[in-house]
Amino acid sequence: MKTKSNQELICGLNVVTEIIKIRPKSVKNLFIGRSNKERFKSLIEKAEKEEIIINEEGKKFFEENFKDINHQNVALICNKRSEESEMFLERFKEKSELRLLILDGLSDPHNMGACLRSAAAASVDAVIVPKNRSCHLTPTVRRISSGASELIPFVIVTNLVRTIDFLRRNGVTVYGSDLEATKTHDEVIYPHKLALVIGSESKGIRRLTKENCDELIRIRISDKVESLNASVSTGIMLFEIQRQTYKN
Amino acid sequence: MKTKSNQELICGLNVVTEIIKIRPKSVKNLFIGRSNKERFKSLIEKAEKEEIIINEEGKKFFEENFKDINHQNVALICNKRSEESEMFLERFKEKSELRLLILDGLSDPHNMGACLRSAAAASVDAVIVPKNRSCHLTPTVRRISSGASELIPFVIVTNLVRTIDFLRRNGVTVYGSDLEATKTHDEVIYPHKLALVIGSESKGIRRLTKENCDELIRIRISDKVESLNASVSTGIMLFEIQRQTYKN
Repeated sequence: MKTKSNQELICGLNVVTEIIKIRPKSVKNLFIGRSNKERFKSLIEKAEKEEIIINEEGKKFFEENFKDINHQNVALICNKRSEESEMFLERFKEKSELRLLILDGLSDPHNMGACLRSAAAASVDAVIVPKNRSCHLTPTVRRISSGASELIPFVIVTNLVRTIDFLRRNGVTVYGSDLEATKTHDEVIYPHKLALVIGSESKGIRRLTKENCDELIRIRISDKVESLNASVSTGIMLFEIQRQTYKN
Repeated sequence: MKTKSNQELICGLNVVTEIIKIRPKSVKNLFIGRSNKERFKSLIEKAEKEEIIINEEGKKFFEENFKDINHQNVALICNKRSEESEMFLERFKEKSELRLLILDGLSDPHNMGACLRSAAAASVDAVIVPKNRSCHLTPTVRRISSGASELIPFVIVTNLVRTIDFLRRNGVTVYGSDLEATKTHDEVIYPHKLALVIGSESKGIRRLTKENCDELIRIRISDKVESLNASVSTGIMLFEIQRQTYKN
C-alpha cells in the first residue's frame, strides 16, 4: 500500500482507536479485517460519524503490509503526526508545575514506545529527543506505545545541551539517570518543575549532556546485574517522581 | 545448526558471558565471529580456561542461525537451563525474608525477559510461572533478559492457586496487580516475606488467582492511559518494594 509523503499507514487496535478519538480529521482510510466487523463495531461507528472511508480487507492485505507485526486486523492511513520543534518549549516558561522526559539517544523503537506509554501514564508534559542519533515517532513506536504517542507532545531539538540550558534558566531542575551516580533515585526530593534525562540503551547519557544536569541519579540494583532495560528504568524513575509529587 | 534435545543454541554477548561465568560446565561450544576475535578476547580467555571448544564462524553462520536477531556475533551451545518444579519452593518455608515474583500468563518473550532482568536487579529469590499458558525460558527470553535468566531460579508449577495457597500458609503475603484495585502500590507497607503477582498483557491476573491474593494493588496512572506495559509495571512495583524493604 502506497501512502503520500505526508501520510502514514499504522496498525494495531489501541493506536488506531486513539488516533480516531484524538485526531479524527487527520484520518483518511480505516482498514478492517473482513471477518472482524462485529468485533470492531464501535470503532466502525465512530469512524462513520467522522466521515472516514472504511475499507474491508482480507488476510492478504494485512499480511502484505504488516508482515510479522501484530496488526490485529485493523489499520488506518492518516496524516503524519507533527513532531514539535524547540519553539514548542517556550510555552513552558511560565508554568509552575512541569514534568519533562528527555530521551538522549534511545534507538530501539520498542523502548521508545514503552517510554511514551509510561510518560503519558505519569502525566509527563512533553517528551524531548535529539534530532540525530535517536528513534523518532515511527509507526512501530506508535503501535508499541498503545496509543500513548498520540497523547503526548514529542519535541525534536537540534542541540540537547542548549535545550537543557534553556530549561534550567527557566527554573526546571534537570536529573540525569546514570549508573555511576552517587545518589539513588529514591533519595532525592523532587521539585514540581523538573526534567528527567534517560540515556541510550548501550552507552547511557552522553558526556556533555551529563555535565549539564543538575543532579545525577541511579536506581539501586543488585550488584549481580549490570543495568535495567531502558524503558523499565524510565518507568521506575517517573513513578517515584509521581509518588512524591502527585499530578493528575 | 542442529542441537541435541537437551541442549540449546543461544546468542547475545551478555547472556553468553553470564552462562560461561555461572555454568561453564554446561557449555559445549562457543561461536565467535571471525572478525571479532579482538573484541571478545577476555571472553575467549575465560572459555579456554574452562576447556570449552571455540569455533570461529563467518557472517553466514550467524545469519542462518539468528535471522533478524541482534546476535552480536557471539553464541554458544549449552545444556538447557533446568527449570525448577514446585518442590523447589519447600526451601522457602523457613526463610524470614523472601521476595517472589509470580507471572500469571505472560506470553510475550520480550516482556518475560525484561521481567527477569528487573527481578534479578530487585533481588527477587525466584520467579514462578504456571506450566500452561505462559512463556517459559526460551532462548529469546534469555537473550532479552541480558543474562539475568541465568541468575534467578525459574519455577514452573502446575497449579498456581495451590502454590499461592502453599505460600500463604507459610507466612508469605501475596499481592496481586490489578487495574481495578482500590489501593495503589505505594500506599501499601510491604512485609519482608511477600510475593507479587503480575497478570498477562491482555487479560491481567486470572479470576481464581486474584481471589486467592491477600491484597490487590494498582499503579496510579493518568486516566488518559489504559495501562502500562507489563514489564514496566513489574519494575515499578518491585522497586517500590525494594525502596521500602531494602535487600541486597
